[in-house]
Amino acid sequence: MDRNQVTQKIVTAKVSKKMTWAQIAERVGQSKEWTTAAMLGQMTLTAKQAAAAQELFELTDEETLWLQIVPYKGSLPTPVPTDPLIYRWYEIVSVYGSTIKELIHEEFGDGIMSAIDFKMDIQRQADPNGDRVNVMLSGKFLPYKTY
Amino acid sequence: MDRNQVTQKIVTAKVSKKMTWAQIAERVGQSKEWTTAAMLGQMTLTAKQAAAAQELFELTDEETLWLQIVPYKGSLPTPVPTDPLIYRWYEIVSVYGSTIKELIHEEFGDGIMSAIDFKMDIQRQADPNGDRVNVMLSGKFLPYKTY
Amino acid sequence: MDRNQVTQKIVTAKVSKKMTWAQIAERVGQSKEWTTAAMLGQMTLTAKQAAAAQELFELTDEETLWLQIVPYKGSLPTPVPTDPLIYRWYEIVSVYGSTIKELIHEEFGDGIMSAIDFKMDIQRQADPNGDRVNVMLSGKFLPYKTY
Amino acid sequence: MDRNQVTQKIVTAKVSKKMTWAQIAERVGQSKEWTTAAMLGQMTLTAKQAAAAQELFELTDEETLWLQIVPYKGSLPTPVPTDPLIYRWYEIVSVYGSTIKELIHEEFGDGIMSAIDFKMDIQRQADPNGDRVNVMLSGKFLPYKTY
Amino acid sequence: MDRNQVTQKIVTAKVSKKMTWAQIAERVGQSKEWTTAAMLGQMTLTAKQAAAAQELFELTDEETLWLQIVPYKGSLPTPVPTDPLIYRWYEIVSVYGSTIKELIHEEFGDGIMSAIDFKMDIQRQADPNGDRVNVMLSGKFLPYKTY
Amino acid sequence: MDRNQVTQKIVTAKVSKKMTWAQIAERVGQSKEWTTAAMLGQMTLTAKQAAAAQELFELTDEETLWLQIVPYKGSLPTPVPTDPLIYRWYEIVSVYGSTIKELIHEEFGDGIMSAIDFKMDIQRQADPNGDRVNVMLSGKFLPYKTY
Amino acid sequence: MDRNQVTQKIVTAKVSKKMTWAQIAERVGQSKEWTTAAMLGQMTLTAKQAAAAQELFELTDEETLWLQIVPYKGSLPTPVPTDPLIYRWYEIVSVYGSTIKELIHEEFGDGIMSAIDFKMDIQRQADPNGDRVNVMLSGKFLPYKTY
Amino acid sequence: MDRNQVTQKIVTAKVSKKMTWAQIAERVGQSKEWTTAAMLGQMTLTAKQAAAAQELFELTDEETLWLQIVPYKGSLPTPVPTDPLIYRWYEIVSVYGSTIKELIHEEFGDGIMSAIDFKMDIQRQADPNGDRVNVMLSGKFLPYKTY
Amino acid sequence: MDRNQVTQKIVTAKVSKKMTWAQIAERVGQSKEWTTAAMLGQMTLTAKQAAAAQELFELTDEETLWLQIVPYKGSLPTPVPTDPLIYRWYEIVSVYGSTIKELIHEEFGDGIMSAIDFKMDIQRQADPNGDRVNVMLSGKFLPYKTY
Amino acid sequence: MDRNQVTQKIVTAKVSKKMTWAQIAERVGQSKEWTTAAMLGQMTLTAKQAAAAQELFELTDEETLWLQIVPYKGSLPTPVPTDPLIYRWYEIVSVYGSTIKELIHEEFGDGIMSAIDFKMDIQRQADPNGDRVNVMLSGKFLPYKTY
Repeated sequence: MDRNQVTQKIVTAKVSKKMTWAQIAERVGQSKEWTTAAMLGQMTLTAKQAAAAQELFELTDEETLWLQIVPYKGSLPTPVPTDPLIYRWYEIVSVYGSTIKELIHEEFGDGIMSAIDFKMDIQRQADPNGDRVNVMLSGKFLPYKTY
Repeated sequence: MDRNQVTQKIVTAKVSKKMTWAQIAERVGQSKEWTTAAMLGQMTLTAKQAAAAQELFELTDEETLWLQIVPYKGSLPTPVPTDPLIYRWYEIVSVYGSTIKELIHEEFGDGIMSAIDFKMDIQRQADPNGDRVNVMLSGKFLPYKTY
Repeated sequence: MDRNQVTQKIVTAKVSKKMTWAQIAERVGQSKEWTTAAMLGQMTLTAKQAAAAQELFELTDEETLWLQIVPYKGSLPTPVPTDPLIYRWYEIVSVYGSTIKELIHEEFGDGIMSAIDFKMDIQRQADPNGDRVNVMLSGKFLPYKTY
Repeated sequence: MDRNQVTQKIVTAKVSKKMTWAQIAERVGQSKEWTTAAMLGQMTLTAKQAAAAQELFELTDEETLWLQIVPYKGSLPTPVPTDPLIYRWYEIVSVYGSTIKELIHEEFGDGIMSAIDFKMDIQRQADPNGDRVNVMLSGKFLPYKTY
Repeated sequence: MDRNQVTQKIVTAKVSKKMTWAQIAERVGQSKEWTTAAMLGQMTLTAKQAAAAQELFELTDEETLWLQIVPYKGSLPTPVPTDPLIYRWYEIVSVYGSTIKELIHEEFGDGIMSAIDFKMDIQRQADPNGDRVNVMLSGKFLPYKTY
Repeated sequence: MDRNQVTQKIVTAKVSKKMTWAQIAERVGQSKEWTTAAMLGQMTLTAKQAAAAQELFELTDEETLWLQIVPYKGSLPTPVPTDPLIYRWYEIVSVYGSTIKELIHEEFGDGIMSAIDFKMDIQRQADPNGDRVNVMLSGKFLPYKTY
Repeated sequence: MDRNQVTQKIVTAKVSKKMTWAQIAERVGQSKEWTTAAMLGQMTLTAKQAAAAQELFELTDEETLWLQIVPYKGSLPTPVPTDPLIYRWYEIVSVYGSTIKELIHEEFGDGIMSAIDFKMDIQRQADPNGDRVNVMLSGKFLPYKTY
Repeated sequence: MDRNQVTQKIVTAKVSKKMTWAQIAERVGQSKEWTTAAMLGQMTLTAKQAAAAQELFELTDEETLWLQIVPYKGSLPTPVPTDPLIYRWYEIVSVYGSTIKELIHEEFGDGIMSAIDFKMDIQRQADPNGDRVNVMLSGKFLPYKTY
Repeated sequence: MDRNQVTQKIVTAKVSKKMTWAQIAERVGQSKEWTTAAMLGQMTLTAKQAAAAQELFELTDEETLWLQIVPYKGSLPTPVPTDPLIYRWYEIVSVYGSTIKELIHEEFGDGIMSAIDFKMDIQRQADPNGDRVNVMLSGKFLPYKTY
Repeated sequence: MDRNQVTQKIVTAKVSKKMTWAQIAERVGQSKEWTTAAMLGQMTLTAKQAAAAQELFELTDEETLWLQIVPYKGSLPTPVPTDPLIYRWYEIVSVYGSTIKELIHEEFGDGIMSAIDFKMDIQRQADPNGDRVNVMLSGKFLPYKTY
């Protein structure tokens, strides 16, 4: 058994039970963004969060244990993603990557925006020209250490 | 001559003149995010914007023309970026890519978040635990056409 | 269970039942191009379209649900396709890619031709020198946003 | 000297002389699609076509000779293109590749749509919801030989 | 079920029945080159050819149907083949590729040698210094269309 | 200086002097296939062959020496060739590779067809349905040594 | 069934029966180097050699037949091997590759050292500073054919 | 300046002065294998060895200094070498890699054959069936440390 | 059966028995670093170490034998790791690789730091600004042999 | 001008002036590890540090400015390094990567060891069996944020 099999089981259960990620998140007690990442095998659950998942998805005790093991992360099958929705994000990194680098360095100096001390919020913004997806990314700035 | 040479000249001039991207953006009359992308060879300038760049960076008339030609986009030298700041964004796509996909589809159905009808805003948020980089991405949702 | 297994089942049923994509499309009520893509796991079906597929291919209720879940898109096993028919299309992108870019920009300015708000029509054109495959691609032009 | 240098010179001259591909095509006497591909180093010119280019771009005799040499084709710097406009075409091949294959085989049997005995026509279609790029591709069907 | 499974079954049957490709080709009624390619999942059989294969390899009706479906072609597991015999052919393309290109263009002008309207014949030539493999490749020349 | 520079010079001279490979081969005293490969930097010339090339292309003595040094072979810029004419040969290896392997082993047992003790002959065959390119490849069979 | 399955069975049997490759080689009647390569699916056995393997590893008749079929060669899962022992050999090719090329050409002229008419012998050499692995590689020199 | 430029200069001088690697090695005072690797930019020379090279190749003092700097090693332009002579060595690693691993482990246990405490000797062996290249590789066995 | 299956079984047993690597190491009698690597299929166990593992994880005798076979090493699924924790180590090699090379050569001359005669110690260091991971790597320096 | 050119100039000056990294570090006023990384184009210098470098390497004012610009990081030419010393570090990541991951997670929970709030110390340890390279890596542990 490994975490991928638990992920597969959760995704299959979600489809057959017609649950939404928002409903699952409410039951797990975290944001929909973190909860979805966790259910898709990218985050580690506490015992309490895992128990909520166990109940929702009818997991065995062993499967529930696996949710509490730190997973090998990375949710995409290829270095350059083929799925159009995900590719647009890769394209943003490709086209705007140097811009993001320049502007963060201009404001903060040498360092990075953390992808670990990080949170994300995805919202719909109504717009008469077509609704928009608004995504707020927030990561702690970590300066390079000089020694 | 090609656009890369103009980009190289602009970046070199920016360093020797000690300008910031924010200052350049004010002169060009657009946001700092769009202006930086444009100066780094990813966007196309209007004649007026190009004239502002010409004055700032002492470009020749031919170089100024090149700023108005649509560039071949993509600002990174390798498919998986080696620079740590930019890699963290690639990592966000890798770790959270499937999450982003699930949540946008849950809210909007099948389609994508546009990287063309798109804007980005990068801000510093003061935080006693270490300041944070906040990035707002906003892209129009485009539903898949059924026919 | 995942969408790939449903795709496999549909393709196998199509072979053993000797159906054509045109016949399937008529039953699903969409064009043969969209229907084939959907049956091959690239598009999302409505409940009604999925019900038509269920009847045609004798799918279970769970399999029918999966047809209504947005799939992870990308239908080819390698970045450069090995199949000669599909490779010719890759070759068109390789040889004519810069031409297509130049001519669309010349007509429309900076932006893209959408692959989402997009449709395709494949027709046979009789020709005494050998019949021709005529393909009409139609995508909305999306201009880059300036901000 | 090689063909790439001539291509570079032509592209640079086109920018500084502010010509359009349509104007160039008229002078060369072919469609704008073929002419653009030829000027970008993908097609071979006849002596007469090359002479037209020589006059337009002030080429030397040796440069004009190179236009009549069959080039090493392929106009993109990476197997998966980074430019968003060209990527959308790659995405069409990725998402719709298996569909195109199925439908052409359904109509014609085993074989390919030629990318050599091939022509392309790119048109703007006015549309109140946003103008569309319409592209007609026409390639001779070549059946696999049995022996 | 898919074509690969039928190919696997055929290859396994050929080994246990100790048939040669030449014998199989005689039963299928085509050359040994075309027949081998077809049996290895690269060509499409007619109903009559498939019936011969069904009898030879004791295929089910469904497996026999799959032989008549156009396969996804490409018979090698990696872009650069690791098997020494096949690598030598890759090496011929690598070392002599530019030579072949030059000589065909010198004789025919711009275009390609078809790999579709194509046939191949493999023969042993006795030679006191060691027998030779002689391979005749014959492909129709297809000139690039000008338009 | 290296061999590539000599190759570049030869190719440039060939274009400006409007020579054919067949004419060059006659002067060098070998087949057009071997001579073209040699001039394109894939083969090593004898002093006498190099002297013929020196005269034809007005090479310096040092350049002439380089023609007699064994080159680093491989004439293509990418593992999968982008040029359509050369790609068709790659496709033949991809589609027919397993067939070639099977048939040579059936006739000769385990071993390879040499790409070193190898010769190639390219001919035009007139054909009312379109002329054909006929290529004869001849390589010594080398059996695997058992020890 | 395929050759890989037979290889897996042989390797598993070797472990559970605690045989050494040297013992196996003695039973097969060839060197330990050739025998190991053959058992690992890289060489073709004669009927007599296969019979020895059948007895040793308790193979079925069908499995024994597969040992006499020429395998698809290549024993490593990635182009650059990750296993440290095998990587050191890859490193020798990477660091000394150009040296080996120069010295063989200096002694023999243009051509290759055959990897087919080839043998290998691996020996332990006692050494007070730590024992050494001595490997003798012997390959026939094959000169490039001029034609 | 960097080491590659010095390597280029040495190789060019060797060609124009018609020296052999064996002659150079004698002057440098080391084996022909080590000396060739060093001259090709893979090894570090002592002051005395560098002085010999300086005299032989008429190097400047600065170029001579670079020969004493440890180089960034790796002598091949691609991960899978295209040159046929070097490829045969890559093929030996590919085909025999698992065999070499098995036999060294059988004799020595877990560890590697060093490519650092390593030497190589390349010899011609006369043979009536065609002379052979004999290569002796000798590397210290390094056992994995347990801790 | 192969080593991967044993690794899978051990990892699964560790999760369901809620053991730590430190506890396992104590039972095996080696450091936690070496023991973890060994249990994850990267090191070879002695009969005694394997017996301890057998008892802990309830392995069969055959599984226990596999722990004593030298494994094919390499614990990551892709050349560039996607997991963020492991990527940071890849990043250290990418960013600091040239620095490490320079400083080791400055101190020791040409050679390498062994990854075989190597040990590693991972410790937590309490720190009011956030605890730190301290890793000590120790590898024997191996000078390049001159010959 | 770009940072690479400044790096090239510094490295060349270091060779011709026969300075060590330790001496340079003393002048710059930081550790030898950080200073070497900075001089090799991986870190950003303060004005004061840059002034020290300017004096040492006789840099122009513009070159000195570039040392204070955040560089695009990544010091290696290929994803898998070919240099043996650096490869051994890549191998440590490959072989021990999963071990490092397990042990850090066992001690700290889910998160990473920072490569930004990070320092490194490289020391020689005398050892009668051959001196050892000891490297201490210290990175702050960053726990994954839950939200």
